[in-house]
Amino acid sequence: MLNFECDYMRGACPEVLDRLVKTNMDETLGYGDDPYCKSAAGRIREICGCPDARVYFLVGGTQVNATAIYAVLKHCQGVISPVTGHINHHEAGAVEATGHKVISLPGRDGKLDATEVRNYLKAYWNDENYAHIVEPGMVYITHPTELGTLYSLRELQDMAAVCREYHIPLYLDGARLAYAIASDKTDVTLRDIASLCDIFYIGGTKCGALFGEALVIPRPELTGDLFSIIKQRGAMLAKGRLLGLQFDTLLADGLYERNGLNAIRTAGLLAKGLQAKGYRFLIPPQTNQLFVIMGNAGIERLRKKVSFSLWEHVDADHSAIRLVTDWATSEADVEALLSLL
Amino acid sequence: MLNFECDYMRGACPEVLDRLVKTNMDETLGYGDDPYCKSAAGRIREICGCPDARVYFLVGGTQVNATAIYAVLKHCQGVISPVTGHINHHEAGAVEATGHKVISLPGRDGKLDATEVRNYLKAYWNDENYAHIVEPGMVYITHPTELGTLYSLRELQDMAAVCREYHIPLYLDGARLAYAIASDKTDVTLRDIASLCDIFYIGGTKCGALFGEALVIPRPELTGDLFSIIKQRGAMLAKGRLLGLQFDTLLADGLYERNGLNAIRTAGLLAKGLQAKGYRFLIPPQTNQLFVIMGNAGIERLRKKVSFSLWEHVDADHSAIRLVTDWATSEADVEALLSLL
Amino acid sequence: MLNFECDYMRGACPEVLDRLVKTNMDETLGYGDDPYCKSAAGRIREICGCPDARVYFLVGGTQVNATAIYAVLKHCQGVISPVTGHINHHEAGAVEATGHKVISLPGRDGKLDATEVRNYLKAYWNDENYAHIVEPGMVYITHPTELGTLYSLRELQDMAAVCREYHIPLYLDGARLAYAIASDKTDVTLRDIASLCDIFYIGGTKCGALFGEALVIPRPELTGDLFSIIKQRGAMLAKGRLLGLQFDTLLADGLYERNGLNAIRTAGLLAKGLQAKGYRFLIPPQTNQLFVIMGNAGIERLRKKVSFSLWEHVDADHSAIRLVTDWATSEADVEALLSLL
Amino acid sequence: MLNFECDYMRGACPEVLDRLVKTNMDETLGYGDDPYCKSAAGRIREICGCPDARVYFLVGGTQVNATAIYAVLKHCQGVISPVTGHINHHEAGAVEATGHKVISLPGRDGKLDATEVRNYLKAYWNDENYAHIVEPGMVYITHPTELGTLYSLRELQDMAAVCREYHIPLYLDGARLAYAIASDKTDVTLRDIASLCDIFYIGGTKCGALFGEALVIPRPELTGDLFSIIKQRGAMLAKGRLLGLQFDTLLADGLYERNGLNAIRTAGLLAKGLQAKGYRFLIPPQTNQLFVIMGNAGIERLRKKVSFSLWEHVDADHSAIRLVTDWATSEADVEALLSLL
Repeated sequence: MLNFECDYMRGACPEVLDRLVKTNMDETLGYGDDPYCKSAAGRIREICGCPDARVYFLVGGTQVNATAIYAVLKHCQGVISPVTGHINHHEAGAVEATGHKVISLPGRDGKLDATEVRNYLKAYWNDENYAHIVEPGMVYITHPTELGTLYSLRELQDMAAVCREYHIPLYLDGARLAYAIASDKTDVTLRDIASLCDIFYIGGTKCGALFGEALVIPRPELTGDLFSIIKQRGAMLAKGRLLGLQFDTLLADGLYERNGLNAIRTAGLLAKGLQAKGYRFLIPPQTNQLFVIMGNAGIERLRKKVSFSLWEHVDADHSAIRLVTDWATSEADVEALLSLL
Repeated sequence: MLNFECDYMRGACPEVLDRLVKTNMDETLGYGDDPYCKSAAGRIREICGCPDARVYFLVGGTQVNATAIYAVLKHCQGVISPVTGHINHHEAGAVEATGHKVISLPGRDGKLDATEVRNYLKAYWNDENYAHIVEPGMVYITHPTELGTLYSLRELQDMAAVCREYHIPLYLDGARLAYAIASDKTDVTLRDIASLCDIFYIGGTKCGALFGEALVIPRPELTGDLFSIIKQRGAMLAKGRLLGLQFDTLLADGLYERNGLNAIRTAGLLAKGLQAKGYRFLIPPQTNQLFVIMGNAGIERLRKKVSFSLWEHVDADHSAIRLVTDWATSEADVEALLSLL
Repeated sequence: MLNFECDYMRGACPEVLDRLVKTNMDETLGYGDDPYCKSAAGRIREICGCPDARVYFLVGGTQVNATAIYAVLKHCQGVISPVTGHINHHEAGAVEATGHKVISLPGRDGKLDATEVRNYLKAYWNDENYAHIVEPGMVYITHPTELGTLYSLRELQDMAAVCREYHIPLYLDGARLAYAIASDKTDVTLRDIASLCDIFYIGGTKCGALFGEALVIPRPELTGDLFSIIKQRGAMLAKGRLLGLQFDTLLADGLYERNGLNAIRTAGLLAKGLQAKGYRFLIPPQTNQLFVIMGNAGIERLRKKVSFSLWEHVDADHSAIRLVTDWATSEADVEALLSLL
Repeated sequence: MLNFECDYMRGACPEVLDRLVKTNMDETLGYGDDPYCKSAAGRIREICGCPDARVYFLVGGTQVNATAIYAVLKHCQGVISPVTGHINHHEAGAVEATGHKVISLPGRDGKLDATEVRNYLKAYWNDENYAHIVEPGMVYITHPTELGTLYSLRELQDMAAVCREYHIPLYLDGARLAYAIASDKTDVTLRDIASLCDIFYIGGTKCGALFGEALVIPRPELTGDLFSIIKQRGAMLAKGRLLGLQFDTLLADGLYERNGLNAIRTAGLLAKGLQAKGYRFLIPPQTNQLFVIMGNAGIERLRKKVSFSLWEHVDADHSAIRLVTDWATSEADVEALLSLL
């Protein structure tokens, strides 16, 4: 079976695994109070160009999103998200379970538009009954989005400008951030993100770590220390160093970027091969997720040899499927897939 | 100042006030364990034709909605509501504050359509990742809606059928129920509601009570006893009898219907007068809320002598305003208003 | 049946009822934005000597407690309460339902001791694992307590000093405040409370109002505007003026004090009569609640003619019962009760 | 530095680490839908003698506790715990953050007594105001306890009998379960636990796993499927197989027991050595945690070469420290420690 189902089907990239093995019998204090977490946090501050940033390591994406949003929102505030945003659709109501509304705006291709956000904020504050309505207290975006699309630097700057105008934080969910910054379609760097966003996370689970995400708060005044909140939400790993040493490895010597580049390169080969065979895309490919339109019969045939997700029905006879590459996808995998089409 | 702003600007209708005065020095046990609440609950069971119904008296609408929805939903479930639903837009996130998502569907003229609800439920259960998505566990409708519109009996039957097909309860917010059942545009009775809905409330605050709403659960197996939940949510009135005796009065001798009819009759006069003067409506009037389109300059002039809500901008020069009648509106009020136009 | 069961068995004191009747057909805006609420808030600010105080009117005690504590506590904080505190024992977990722990300390006779609170706070901050433990973020006391006892001015000053030392607010639940300030055993005034507490409420429901409690925050910087939180928690009365005009009446011309004095005077007569007959008290009477020790057989006989609460078993043959007077108890009631003993 | 601080200072036991390495490039579906989780769940059902059990793998202890308790408790219920219970004291209010009260009973040496639980339940249900009080809906115990003590089979049977009498589930927190079942002071087997408890977890993090806990619900009718709740609480690991393969390894060939025995054997050697040197224990040692009373000066000296926790002050000159062994502690470590005393 060829796997193009998702980017979390394997364990860790070799360097991360090696580090886990080598440090296995080291003895450290728990809960992130260890040299590996300190070193990883230091690397993040340096790479991101934000020397005062708070950095926390958590285990998974839904956990980070719910914890961070809960930590930042005030009572009666909600978070603006595109309809397709992960927190709005695929986290089983984790944000609402913390007591906060996800305010969904339509967006386009998985992205919010700064103007639509500004219009919403303006209308809210102009409504004479605003105190009866959930106050928009944060903007949530993903980069790349759930549809594999990317914000341009200009779009990100515009969004940050709206957020600053209305004094609300901009939160970026970077579950697949390696594949954003490695894309040949992007003009956004990690430093841009750290400069424009008020809070974001650098995804590990889908980008070569065994597991783990690094939450970054560039300007520490946004929140107090989040230790107790993370603990309270069951998101504090006892052996915190397992997270620290993975990020310490990923962020040294460009490993995170290399992991990203492999996915981008193999996705590029795949896209090219698909186009050569006449396939069209639901959305122009930008990162490691391709949404390919196929005939339903062909999809059924392909399913026998390849794992992938059925995304949506396009018309009576066609559907879009999602094909995902990652840090471990090989050119041979891509060729094998193309040979089946 | 003429008041057409809302239906909760005055105290209680005279009969209710008299009853409060006459019973003032009676001594009863607290928390609803008194003869007035028992009598009122009995009347409700009889009028609604549901002899086994659980009946609880609470103070206000947001309180009832949040308590009832919280009591009924299971973990990880959300409640389907039209975008314009009161719980979705005007309750400051009260439902989400109990940990549950409001799943908003577009609807039309304030109403949900049974087909759109069925399609959503079908798509949810067909999604292979449904366990990652908030489960739709209830349908919430208002009758009349926030736009003054009414479900027909057929529409209500269709909605009940969808809910039964998917084994989820149908909840009807009856904040203005007196004005629904008194409307000359309705074929829905209180008995229909009690037979088709799994849980609903009979609104008092906006319909002639000093304050108070009666929550009705026709088939008691839907929930356990809600006493503790009501207490926990701060929604248990110590002098519970104040609520019981109001509903005992409203539901005796057709007072609730008479209150409704007054609003409907005066709204009808107003609508007729407006049409005679050439005004158009944003939505065809069905109950006690009229959404009238006026020129912006005229609106500003009218504001000096009449209180009302600005509803929405229609075009550059015109807006819709909301005019509301209630149990206490007189024909003289209507004539005075018309004479200003 | 003679009623000494509780202080919320009747409606409102006559002056409050009259005011409700007289203002019934007045037309005002909803949600507390009306002249009665403004006037009542002004009276409270004046009487309490805190011209900048935020004042909100809510319907009931559990509602005020849960809303106020939720509004003030930060994430991961809990509220210190005596074991016997109303929030710890008799509100069905309302505070925990907002996500916060009630940290119960033993206290004595319903009261917390400043030293025990200081010791707890000191131990907490000295614990090297404090971040794993719920942070004590507020002190909750009742005055009078659930056992009818009173804090002396010195005790209240000491408690305020501890709270200020640790930078946490002191919250006073004044459900029966009229009976505290009218007691001949107290040296604490309403001004003392407003000066020493950071947040407190003036109880109406048990002190002569039909219903309602006035939440007071003497220094407005403690919280933001609570309108949306109150709305979200279903604690915002649509016809807010009903609350305002009751407090506007109670706090004019010393009515609140007179209501308190009646209960204190009749409780004093009752205590004297009981002592004359040789009865002992579980706790020395200070306000309108008497905890009288009686033989179990006598208690059963008394139950047939008098309503009261059984408080606790004292030994195999004796129990303590609670007898409560209020603003409406007459000397005749007391004599009738004494004649049965 | 010699480490006797806790049992989570190192990574995984070698067999678990090997398995992680060997399976690293396997490709499996996410969220626990993989052969390793299935195999591990099968082993657990077999070892525990409960073929119908639901089994879920989560990452950490606080996460399991909060998720399991939230999943099982009904609205307005709380969970009974000893004062020293981990959920009551060391989880930053995680249970309360899900809306439920932790009802703390004194207990003794970290354990609850069946009689004290029965008395509490009896008093609750006899209280005429029980509906105003949080309903005790579950009993939480740890085994071994936070003080290293163990329930005897008889004690566990008595507790289960109380729970069944009152129809509430018994939950056992087995964070250190390997050290309970390996103890030479126990007559309780894993099968006993599975037969007497309604829900429990088998701890991995502190017992040789890299991380992870296995939640077991012997009779599946207690809860529905917990997948969505686990997801909603951010406790669903994307690469769920990492948890499955660790438990699949730990529970094959007696590895979990061997890990436990190592800690028990080295703790026994340490206890013997300490007694030989005249030290006394705060609590008689039963598992891998020793609470040793030492002079304060000696403690300060020891701190320079050994890491451990200061537990509590015993008198002006003496304190109790906690020394912990685990699956990796060697006899050499113990001898080195003893040589310093």
